[in-house]
Amino acid sequence: MPVNLTSPVAAQLLPVAGVSLGVACAGIKRAERKDLLVMQLSAGTRVAGVFTTNRFCAAPVTVAKEHLASSSGIRALVINTGNANAGTGELGMADARATCAALAGVMGCKPEQILPYSTGVIMEPLPLAKIAAGLPAAVANAKENNWYDAAHAIMTTDIVAKAISKQILIDGVQVTITGIAKGSGMIHPNMATMLGYIATDAAISQPLLQQMVSSACNRSFNCITVDGDTSTNDALMLIATGKSGMVEITRAESSAYETLLGAVSEVALFLAQAIVRDGEGATKFITINLEGGEDEAECKKIGYAIAHSPLVKTAFFASDPNLGRILAAIGYAGVSDLDVSKLELYLDDVLVAEHGGRAASYQEEDGQRVMQQSDITIRVVLNRGSVDTTLWTCDFSYDYVKINASYRS
Amino acid sequence: MPVNLTSPVAAQLLPVAGVSLGVACAGIKRAERKDLLVMQLSAGTRVAGVFTTNRFCAAPVTVAKEHLASSSGIRALVINTGNANAGTGELGMADARATCAALAGVMGCKPEQILPYSTGVIMEPLPLAKIAAGLPAAVANAKENNWYDAAHAIMTTDIVAKAISKQILIDGVQVTITGIAKGSGMIHPNMATMLGYIATDAAISQPLLQQMVSSACNRSFNCITVDGDTSTNDALMLIATGKSGMVEITRAESSAYETLLGAVSEVALFLAQAIVRDGEGATKFITINLEGGEDEAECKKIGYAIAHSPLVKTAFFASDPNLGRILAAIGYAGVSDLDVSKLELYLDDVLVAEHGGRAASYQEEDGQRVMQQSDITIRVVLNRGSVDTTLWTCDFSYDYVKINASYRS
Repeated sequence: MPVNLTSPVAAQLLPVAGVSLGVACAGIKRAERKDLLVMQLSAGTRVAGVFTTNRFCAAPVTVAKEHLASSSGIRALVINTGNANAGTGELGMADARATCAALAGVMGCKPEQILPYSTGVIMEPLPLAKIAAGLPAAVANAKENNWYDAAHAIMTTDIVAKAISKQILIDGVQVTITGIAKGSGMIHPNMATMLGYIATDAAISQPLLQQMVSSACNRSFNCITVDGDTSTNDALMLIATGKSGMVEITRAESSAYETLLGAVSEVALFLAQAIVRDGEGATKFITINLEGGEDEAECKKIGYAIAHSPLVKTAFFASDPNLGRILAAIGYAGVSDLDVSKLELYLDDVLVAEHGGRAASYQEEDGQRVMQQSDITIRVVLNRGSVDTTLWTCDFSYDYVKINASYRS
Repeated sequence: MPVNLTSPVAAQLLPVAGVSLGVACAGIKRAERKDLLVMQLSAGTRVAGVFTTNRFCAAPVTVAKEHLASSSGIRALVINTGNANAGTGELGMADARATCAALAGVMGCKPEQILPYSTGVIMEPLPLAKIAAGLPAAVANAKENNWYDAAHAIMTTDIVAKAISKQILIDGVQVTITGIAKGSGMIHPNMATMLGYIATDAAISQPLLQQMVSSACNRSFNCITVDGDTSTNDALMLIATGKSGMVEITRAESSAYETLLGAVSEVALFLAQAIVRDGEGATKFITINLEGGEDEAECKKIGYAIAHSPLVKTAFFASDPNLGRILAAIGYAGVSDLDVSKLELYLDDVLVAEHGGRAASYQEEDGQRVMQQSDITIRVVLNRGSVDTTLWTCDFSYDYVKINASYRS
């Protein structure tokens, strides 16, 4: 079950003026399941995004990037679950373009004004006919107050939907931000979300919107991992309709930009952490603080070595303070001049190791006490420099194996 | 259960003249278990080795390297299980030295003539008194024909012992090679074995012995992974007593060197593969062939991305041909200019993917047939250059989690 994460409450998800969401059951993988989402945007809406770095990136990722670059005014996003349309070659590209053309036909706009997204099984042909047949219903279903259903329509192995809203004041104008995300396995940095959509009625220039989505992503989705597998389909989109009535943000050195970035980052961080809390089979949510590194690269190397170690993850699953496994992971992280005698390892407030070995003050029962918790912080103080970084991950349980050994069936 | 690997037959393990092995039950972690091995070497024996690259390397690794460098003529190796003496700081160094001093006292040699090795739990103090008390029994038990017991005495989570012998003729002289190894989890390149000991009665110069152990390791132990965790205690030692009566090998460009290297490499490869076959929870043995890469580094990047992917490993456990997960792993391996439309993916003899997607000829039932096997080969033809590499790994099962969630208890 998700670690300290509950399903969103529909009434707490706020509509964003200019964004209408419609869902449908297209029967892509299973019948009677909401598996298609169309997000319609009012004219003048700006969209920016960051995408997976996987070389086998999915056809819809390639098409979405092309359409974003052609900047003809994006009018809708279409998202299907049940099939990733990745590892599908030229046919996959044609299917992604045909999906856009089909929706453009229903909506009366150009195919280039549609951004497509897919998530699900890799290397199987997209069931284009089913998707095309489902589009009219998804368009007809469009409502501004439909984020709850939208969050559910993009789920695959997720147990709970991930969604949050936030309101802020910018120069006295109320601005709303609502975000949804999906993802549970195949989660790793370099765009880790699988899929995330954050919309706001704020007004902001296109270059600053792109800068903002990159910044928010680096502080959130790019700092989480479940299993170290970078998906072929990851995308995080930031949508700004400008409908709030505020004055457009055109300078990064402005309090309006900072305020909006702060709120968007909070939404992104909540969604990213929710993905880890709902990580496949997760029973523990683990925060890894790296302190006093020379640069961010070495902090992340050490943090991800810990976060990806199956031995560390299974020890957390067992609530077993077999903490030497963390030292081993620090040691093989690839920081070749690391002096292990200078670092300190803490589990929450408990000093575990220093001077290259177990701390004299460490008591097994203190480690055991922290290991029983469902939220745990590992703190590695490197004493090499002044850079700090935080990552988030979860443990590794029987259920991770069970879920991934049966995902297709 | 180990994948197509059975326990060695005692009668097939051949003594190596000049090497006497004695085991004892020191009660380090459990009572009544053989957990201490002393390998005594005749005067004039040469020893070379390769060790873990983990920055948190164990105290015995540091001491063994020092003693090897001081070249005072190694007379014995002492190996304990149940405690790794890693992450133990200054106390761990003192304990490793004291172990050598204690054995030197029993044998009547200098402490610098002893090499110490430990394997087991990390970050707990070595129970020095128990080890010292067990040494006289291990020395008294010494026999040349004792490799079977020795292979068992170094096991931790291994299910079966790993040992093999080989005989070759060099210039008409019969030469014997016998090797043992232990390891099952925390297995990854950069010296992957946990512990391996290969002895021969061949005669070979010290520099060539060192060159040979590095070469043999690179073709075997450095090409395997179980869980991607590089141990703090890994070591592979090559011991040459010179007792066969052959003329000493002093040139690498000689048929004698090539013959011996070939045989030692075969022994090393058998032991390395045995570790994977007995990988914690393994049900499948997977060979990964990378062909047509630009260099070995990119072949290994892609190979290890596949071998470490929990999603790929759980699909193999489930015998589910969800082979798009292999494409995803190839895509995120970090080869930034990889053109995925040019590569081919095979499962045994079945062409799975080409032109960036599923091969037109691919049938699910063909993939299913291969996935049912216990020995499977993944072949990635990169079509970028002329370098080929092979790695070996295993799948990821419920039992891996079970074993590592309960290892200390």
